[in-house]
Formats: sequence, structure tokens, C-alpha cells
Amino acid sequence: MEKRIESVLSRFRVENGEQFRLKDHKPDEMAGLDIKKSEAPALLQRGVDYLAAQQDMLYAQDRWSVLCIFQAMDAAGKDGAIKHVFSGVNPQGCHVVSFKAPNATELDHDFLWRHTTALPSRGQIGIHNRSWYEEVLVARVHPAVLEGQKLPPRLRTERIWEERLEDIAAYERYLGRQGTVVLKFFLNISPEEQRQRFLKRIEEPEKNWKFNAGDVSERRHWDDYQAAYEAAIRATATPEAPWYVVPADRKWFTRLVVVAAIGRALEQLDLHYPVVTAEECRALIQAGEELSG
Amino acid sequence: MEKRIESVLSRFRVENGEQFRLKDHKPDEMAGLDIKKSEAPALLQRGVDYLAAQQDMLYAQDRWSVLCIFQAMDAAGKDGAIKHVFSGVNPQGCHVVSFKAPNATELDHDFLWRHTTALPSRGQIGIHNRSWYEEVLVARVHPAVLEGQKLPPRLRTERIWEERLEDIAAYERYLGRQGTVVLKFFLNISPEEQRQRFLKRIEEPEKNWKFNAGDVSERRHWDDYQAAYEAAIRATATPEAPWYVVPADRKWFTRLVVVAAIGRALEQLDLHYPVVTAEECRALIQAGEELSG
Repeated sequence: MEKRIESVLSRFRVENGEQFRLKDHKPDEMAGLDIKKSEAPALLQRGVDYLAAQQDMLYAQDRWSVLCIFQAMDAAGKDGAIKHVFSGVNPQGCHVVSFKAPNATELDHDFLWRHTTALPSRGQIGIHNRSWYEEVLVARVHPAVLEGQKLPPRLRTERIWEERLEDIAAYERYLGRQGTVVLKFFLNISPEEQRQRFLKRIEEPEKNWKFNAGDVSERRHWDDYQAAYEAAIRATATPEAPWYVVPADRKWFTRLVVVAAIGRALEQLDLHYPVVTAEECRALIQAGEELSG
Repeated sequence: MEKRIESVLSRFRVENGEQFRLKDHKPDEMAGLDIKKSEAPALLQRGVDYLAAQQDMLYAQDRWSVLCIFQAMDAAGKDGAIKHVFSGVNPQGCHVVSFKAPNATELDHDFLWRHTTALPSRGQIGIHNRSWYEEVLVARVHPAVLEGQKLPPRLRTERIWEERLEDIAAYERYLGRQGTVVLKFFLNISPEEQRQRFLKRIEEPEKNWKFNAGDVSERRHWDDYQAAYEAAIRATATPEAPWYVVPADRKWFTRLVVVAAIGRALEQLDLHYPVVTAEECRALIQAGEELSG
């Protein structure tokens, strides 16, 4: 990986949660990278091509899996980032799951359950659009959400958020030990940029479908969400399951950071096509002879 | 719960793994309990009736779930204990899952995955006949099993058993926090009693189907298994997810300990039928009036 790219990535990567402060990260920063929007499409394409090539080996090797978690405030660009970064990767080895509010069957289980059943299998890239982090974000900001979770009352203690974060961190450590590379992206948008994007959704007819009146009322809880994100990142950012706090006020820049971060993670797996054994090689030759007639 | 029963249970319950030694537990002990085999059926029935009554409230309340894990050497009586302890409990609220060797889809996931998908939902008792503990038992005793697990080679370190036990303990702690009561039973049989039971399976035609020649060769690994069980119990026995090391040389005694242990755990949940609110009460009266015509 180019030094320049690693230097940009390292600015946004959080591997040691304890020292993390959200206020040290600006939604419009570029970590000194001197590129223009017009150069972005070509750079993105290079990244997507690299991802596609790596994914092919990941699939052939069938040992590792990769889990990419996307979290953000509304309109921060999760869907767009997923669309632009993963279009070009073979969908046979790449699966997106979007998590909405849990249904009745899901509420009858522990909160990880529905996410666990959707985990990528070996050889696959799984993309979770929202994730188990909602359990320490929306559930923390809105007491009614926790209320609806059917927990036995004696388990709803004041340590619940601390415990959930501890449980999530332990589970991600476990997944890493099992061969699932966990990458977490927080798309960090500013309230002003979000306001502009909401206005566009209202003004431009082809964007109307994206608008939800509830999204505006969620803005009132902005500071609570920011505090919940900070607490979550502080408790769960590790070298094995890092967070990327990605500036999200420029969509094109967000996507470049995301594609580079996933590319870097795949590069570190040292992927290659399975090496054919001497015996398999003989079988290949024999099959070739038979086919040649 | 009667003091006498709690005193017997506390002898077999391990809540503090660090101090546990398997050699302190005898397969034929009775913790000073002075009962005869002929008294066992009536006592067992009392336990089963209690379980059935508690389970009905567990189901109505729909908050807690109970996971009973059974582990043992072959012929120690897992199937018999499950049959005799749970026959009498409403099968709508009680579900047994037997885990054999993992299939190809399961091997494509982390080792907890197939067990997680089978967890009991709220209001249910789940019985796992073998469990995630096989991953630190048979996989530890037979290197070929680990070899077949498709782990990326760099993750197969010398700390793997310690890490797996740490992961299991963390996951069980998490489940407890989510409302799943985890109870683990190790049916502790002696090698001599196992030998006698195998011989019966060979000699008695109606027991032939239970015999598997592979079971005899597993006896050669007896000491390795005992060491693996001891390590597993030491690393994962906690007040929230206790192990019961149940003497298994007398089947009737094994079953009494199991039924009492589950009864005790249910008792501690302080279960009751959901209380009807004033509003629901009015609706009940109204419905009653309508039905009376």
C-alpha cells in the first residue's frame, strides 16, 4: 500500500479507543490529502478494482471472512458508500444486510442473535448497514426502545450500556480469532451538512422517497447520539477490530477512505489462490490429457 | 427449596472455577444423601412436576430463557437424563438440540454460530445435548478435528484453547445479561462403569443400536478428555453460568441432581403469571359480558 494512502488512513483509524475524542475529528477534514473532487472517480475505480481482485482470492481460499459495519447519523452517506465501493465486487462473495427495527422473533432473542445469523461465511465479505451498535445508540438515546426489548427487569441495571459495550467488544475479539476480520465505519457528518441534504431530499422530487419526517425529529437528539457514538468507539476500538471515523461532509472523500481501508485490511491477509498439491497437479494433467482426446 | 436438597446441590455446583479439581469429585458419591434407588421415581416425579409448573410461567411471562447444556463421556447418561427429566414438560416451551460433527455450512462459520442459531427464545427451555464445549474437548483431544476447521493458519496459535475458553465464558456472561439462564451439566462417569454399560450395549440386543465401535477407541483418550473437561470447567464456572459436576455411576441419582438443579434455577427467577393491568381487567369484564349475551 502506498505510503500516502496509509498516512491518510492512519489519521482516521481508531485502534486504541481509550484515547478517542470525537471532537478531534472534523466532518470536512482531508488529512492533508491534496486531491480534487474531479480526481476522485478514477481513484475510487482503482480501489474498487483492487477490492474485486482480492475478493476473488478471499473466496477461492475460503478461510477468512470480512465484516464491514456501517454506522452513521441519517443522510451521512452509508447507502451511497456501500453502492459505490462494492459495485464491481462479485455479488456471489459479497452480501449486504440492512438492519431495521427488530421484529417480534428477533426481540425474543439476545440482541446479537439476528446479527449473528447474518454474519458472512468464510470467503465472503459481509456488509452490515447498521449493526449491533444500534443497541448502544438508538436504544441508549430513546428509553422507549430499551423498554420494548423484553429484558427481565432485574437485568436493566445502570451498568447496562457499559456491559453491552463490553459484550460487543468481547464478541468482536472472538470473531477475529475465528477468522472474521471486523472493520467498523462511522461516517461523521456535520449537522449543517445533514440539514442541507435533508432540504435536497424535500426539494428534489426524485429524492423525496428518501425523506422521512422522523429523521428531522432525530436531529433534536444530535448531542445524545454524538455522546453515544463516542462512548461506543472508546469502548470497542482495538487493533483487531478498528473503527474508521470517516469525514462525511464530502461524499466522494468518504468513499475513497472506505475503499482504501477495506483494501488495506485485505492486503494484510496476504491472500493468494490455493496452491495446487503435487497430487492435484497430476490429476490436472491427467484430466487435460483426457480432454485432449 | 428444601435445605436438604440445596445442601446436596451445593456439593456438586461449581461457581468458582479456579478452585475446581476433577479428582475431588467421585462418580459414585451422593453427598451424604440417604436415599435408596426405590425412592427415586417418586422424588423424580416431584421434580418433574415442579419443572412443568415453572415452565408454564416462564412461557407466559416471556422474558427469561433457560439453556441447559449436557456434556459427558459416552454412555454417561445424557440421553436418559434428558428423557426422564423433561418428559412431562410441555414441548411447546422446551426444545432439545443434539449436536453432532459440524457440517460444511457450519464449518464455514465461527464455532458458536450453529449453537447460537439454536438458542432458546424467551419463555423457552433449550436443552443442548453436547454444545460449544466440544470445541475445547474433542477438538482439543483430536488434532485432526481442529485441522478440519478451516481456520486461517496464523490463527491456530498455542493460546487457542485458552482463547476459546475465554470466548465461551464471555459469551455465556453476555447471554446471562440478555436474560438467558445458562446451566451446564457434566455427567461424571467412571471408566469402569462406562465399560459395564458398553458391555450391556453389546450383550443386550435391544441396546445394540446404541453401540458404536468408535466409542471404545475413544476410551484410550480417557485421561486427555478428563484434563480437557477440568480445564473447561475451571475456565467457565461462574455464579452466573455454573457447572454441575453430577455423579453419573448411578443413573437414578444423576437424574435427581439434574432435576433439582434446574428447579433451583427456575425458583430463583421468581416466576409468576403476568399481572393483568386495570385497563386489561376492564377489557376482560367487558368481553365476559359480551359472551354472557
